[in-house]
Amino acid sequence: MKQKDLISPGRRQLLKGGAAMAVSVAGLGAMSAQAAECSGDKPPHFDEIVDVLVIGSGFAGMSAALQAKEAGASVMVIDKMPVFGGNSTINGGAMAVAGSKLQAKEGIKDSVDTMVADMLKAGRGMNDVEMLKLVCNGTAESCQWLEAYGVEWKPFVQHFGGHSLPRVLQTVQSSGAGIIRPLIKAAKQHGIEMRNQTKLESFVKDPAGRVIGVQVRDGYYFPQERTGKMRLIGARKGVIMATGGFSRDLEYRQMQQPELNGDLDSTNHPGATSEALKQMMLIGANPIHLDQIQLGPWASPDEKGFGTASQFNTIATYPSGIVVDVRTGERFFNELADRKARADAIMTRRDDQGNPVYPVGFTNAKGAAQAQTLEWGLKYKVIQKADTLEELAALYQIPAKALKAQVARWNDAVKAGEDKEFGRPMQKAMALEEGPWYGVRMWPKVHYCMGGVKVNTQSQVLHLVSNEPIDGLYAAGEATGGIHGASRLGACAVAEGVVTGRNAGRICAASAAIELKQA
Amino acid sequence: MKQKDLISPGRRQLLKGGAAMAVSVAGLGAMSAQAAECSGDKPPHFDEIVDVLVIGSGFAGMSAALQAKEAGASVMVIDKMPVFGGNSTINGGAMAVAGSKLQAKEGIKDSVDTMVADMLKAGRGMNDVEMLKLVCNGTAESCQWLEAYGVEWKPFVQHFGGHSLPRVLQTVQSSGAGIIRPLIKAAKQHGIEMRNQTKLESFVKDPAGRVIGVQVRDGYYFPQERTGKMRLIGARKGVIMATGGFSRDLEYRQMQQPELNGDLDSTNHPGATSEALKQMMLIGANPIHLDQIQLGPWASPDEKGFGTASQFNTIATYPSGIVVDVRTGERFFNELADRKARADAIMTRRDDQGNPVYPVGFTNAKGAAQAQTLEWGLKYKVIQKADTLEELAALYQIPAKALKAQVARWNDAVKAGEDKEFGRPMQKAMALEEGPWYGVRMWPKVHYCMGGVKVNTQSQVLHLVSNEPIDGLYAAGEATGGIHGASRLGACAVAEGVVTGRNAGRICAASAAIELKQA
Repeated sequence: MKQKDLISPGRRQLLKGGAAMAVSVAGLGAMSAQAAECSGDKPPHFDEIVDVLVIGSGFAGMSAALQAKEAGASVMVIDKMPVFGGNSTINGGAMAVAGSKLQAKEGIKDSVDTMVADMLKAGRGMNDVEMLKLVCNGTAESCQWLEAYGVEWKPFVQHFGGHSLPRVLQTVQSSGAGIIRPLIKAAKQHGIEMRNQTKLESFVKDPAGRVIGVQVRDGYYFPQERTGKMRLIGARKGVIMATGGFSRDLEYRQMQQPELNGDLDSTNHPGATSEALKQMMLIGANPIHLDQIQLGPWASPDEKGFGTASQFNTIATYPSGIVVDVRTGERFFNELADRKARADAIMTRRDDQGNPVYPVGFTNAKGAAQAQTLEWGLKYKVIQKADTLEELAALYQIPAKALKAQVARWNDAVKAGEDKEFGRPMQKAMALEEGPWYGVRMWPKVHYCMGGVKVNTQSQVLHLVSNEPIDGLYAAGEATGGIHGASRLGACAVAEGVVTGRNAGRICAASAAIELKQA
Repeated sequence: MKQKDLISPGRRQLLKGGAAMAVSVAGLGAMSAQAAECSGDKPPHFDEIVDVLVIGSGFAGMSAALQAKEAGASVMVIDKMPVFGGNSTINGGAMAVAGSKLQAKEGIKDSVDTMVADMLKAGRGMNDVEMLKLVCNGTAESCQWLEAYGVEWKPFVQHFGGHSLPRVLQTVQSSGAGIIRPLIKAAKQHGIEMRNQTKLESFVKDPAGRVIGVQVRDGYYFPQERTGKMRLIGARKGVIMATGGFSRDLEYRQMQQPELNGDLDSTNHPGATSEALKQMMLIGANPIHLDQIQLGPWASPDEKGFGTASQFNTIATYPSGIVVDVRTGERFFNELADRKARADAIMTRRDDQGNPVYPVGFTNAKGAAQAQTLEWGLKYKVIQKADTLEELAALYQIPAKALKAQVARWNDAVKAGEDKEFGRPMQKAMALEEGPWYGVRMWPKVHYCMGGVKVNTQSQVLHLVSNEPIDGLYAAGEATGGIHGASRLGACAVAEGVVTGRNAGRICAASAAIELKQA
């Protein structure tokens, strides 16, 4: 019990005296569970007990669960939503990997240090470097671990914005579901208990301050707060929080960033809210970078949520096209900059009244060849097709002459191998020679929370006051804060989720089990 | 008890049952005090009891205390340090006031809306607008309130960076001591208990969750953590947290901003640490913008702390001079931009190895006429004098020809009334016609925490989960978060401290008193 160090000699006397022994750090939400603690000599009786309890079933949660199971622990995964997978199933399924076999095949020389440097640059130096190294160092091996569970990658490496070179693998499905589904299937095969509509209500701690389980609402119907039956689930080895971010929690995100109001859409599923984060904070978890909230710069105002454009722009427009201001027909930023730089640049495009003037990104048929959402985007008119640049200009009311001049300048830059205007990396740059053209209007959407609870490289949640682990409590993935600093690079959420989830699962499963009583 | 709304019907039953009734939200640091609570039927006996307990004795704390006393409450102020006043006594004593008599006298048309707009712009839109309005709206009247306690202002208005017009008053002492000393004197005259070396250890709450007092270390010797005797102080009406920021808490500030490491000096007194903030967070206070930490762009690497340069640059170099890169002799930013913009600009000046290349700010005798720290700065060689520009160039190894050309360009801009290069506001700009010249090397220092706990316009600390007030707990000044967003404008800390301190004092004193038991 490292937290004991905080207790003064005088207090320690009191603790030894007995009465205070029963008191523990309690969250508002833990009234009933805490009642048992407070009585001192009656530890709670749990309705169910496992070794490792994982909360959340996205990349981090499923990776933690399988890794803990591999290590021999009994494991339960709970998720408050009716479907498993959280945001991870609607994510693009792209994973940044430093030193993949595909990179080697394409002759791309990458290293963990290079990936760390890229992420540190995007993070504006605010990153937790030790955690960052842990993530980058684990990508290549985790990529193989995923393959062993049946994950399949497209046979080429992509170059995402902010990365200094191509290092992004993507599932053949172009979706995180290509990772989540095999992991869930494996979890069920291996006897991991999977419980949906089961919501964390509060933590249960023992008199020494160790997290020994949680109170949940069993049969919870999101978002009806008071649904479900209260139950206590005990965790002999620990609780792993893989509870994601709060991009869809409008009230809470606006407290930190008032301008991220309801006018801005989000790419996230409705369950991306803040209550699990808050429960951790109530028992002393140290919140880091809560106001660092990422906008996805590849989204379109012409559809809801992640949609078809996010994928299309990521795989086509950004690496193989350009983005212009419709008023001038000219580029105005490095299309392969990190997400923050791109989103900030796009959001400067406003009229005199401050209303958005949506920029247009476009590429041609060659640039769009690998974009699986092209067809759907066209169907819903989010992506529009034009045979000539004149037609494209007319579609979006761009000055045609200026647009053609811009394309010519871009093609010259590609030939020269250098983007003198905006410094875009040109390794995979493509000249825009001929139509048909595909265009998309663009405006950022709230996408990811860089902030979360502080953890150490053992994935233990650290206490605000002592900076020592809160015993029995682990966290992984988007629920943690500090790895990405001010801006997460694309494809690094899958990397983070899988690597830190596995790390938490492995370490939690290897920890000593405590004895708990069943009801 | 608004927080009750959070408790489910099921839990409410438990609460009614009695046993759970005794449990309250407890911080790690509250073990002994909480022990009494946990036993349920034995409320703590306090060593001393007052109506209003104020923690911290800077601008916010002293303003809260006096305002509460004016309202008829019994008041105690505690401060952990041996001397009262915290950072406020070493601050520059400058207060931004919208609509002061001095502005009227100088024909400057200002308004609360204009001040709000300036602060919102500097804050990058991250500000809590309601709190911002409260502060700006209170400045003119608070300025008179301070005068009534004996505060004296210089007879002219200054133009600080980021403000769109001159609105800054400054004490005749050029120091916050010019405010703090009269307030402390008045506090003692009016029977406010002033206790130094008395450190907040933890909060005491009643079974309903209301803050009813604090546990302190009486006779505490900063920074020896376990010194002092534990005592319980009760507060019938409430506890007002005026505990400032954490700029000198190297470990904690680096968790949020790793680059603000020990290489960077701070202008703050050593007591500017994080433990009071953490105690609030442990009982559910909602932390806002903790990673928004301000660097003072007017500091010099040639002295420790706030020193003589901060004052000199603020009153002389920045409004009446220019700042140049020593390698080029050229200006590189708007010297009247907000602090973040200036500090960020200065910190880009580095050599190939990333080491600082300190820029030099300078003005002439006319520009330095009102700078009271000039003499001391010269004495300690922080400020250096040169009779000619050639001499100034030689002193700092600036290319002389380039420097002279820059001064000529600057003088042209002043004549034209427009700074086309960097958009500096020119209302009080001064041509640099003749020597002697006074130069200072510049490098930012950690200065102010924009982040802190979320409060409402009643200065009540809001709970993370319910967003309702934590009963009995108020906060004011730098301890709160959100008012300034991403960057506080100069002279707005005094404004915030005095206005929100008075607000908290008035409202706390007017609240209903609860009965407490004395030991």
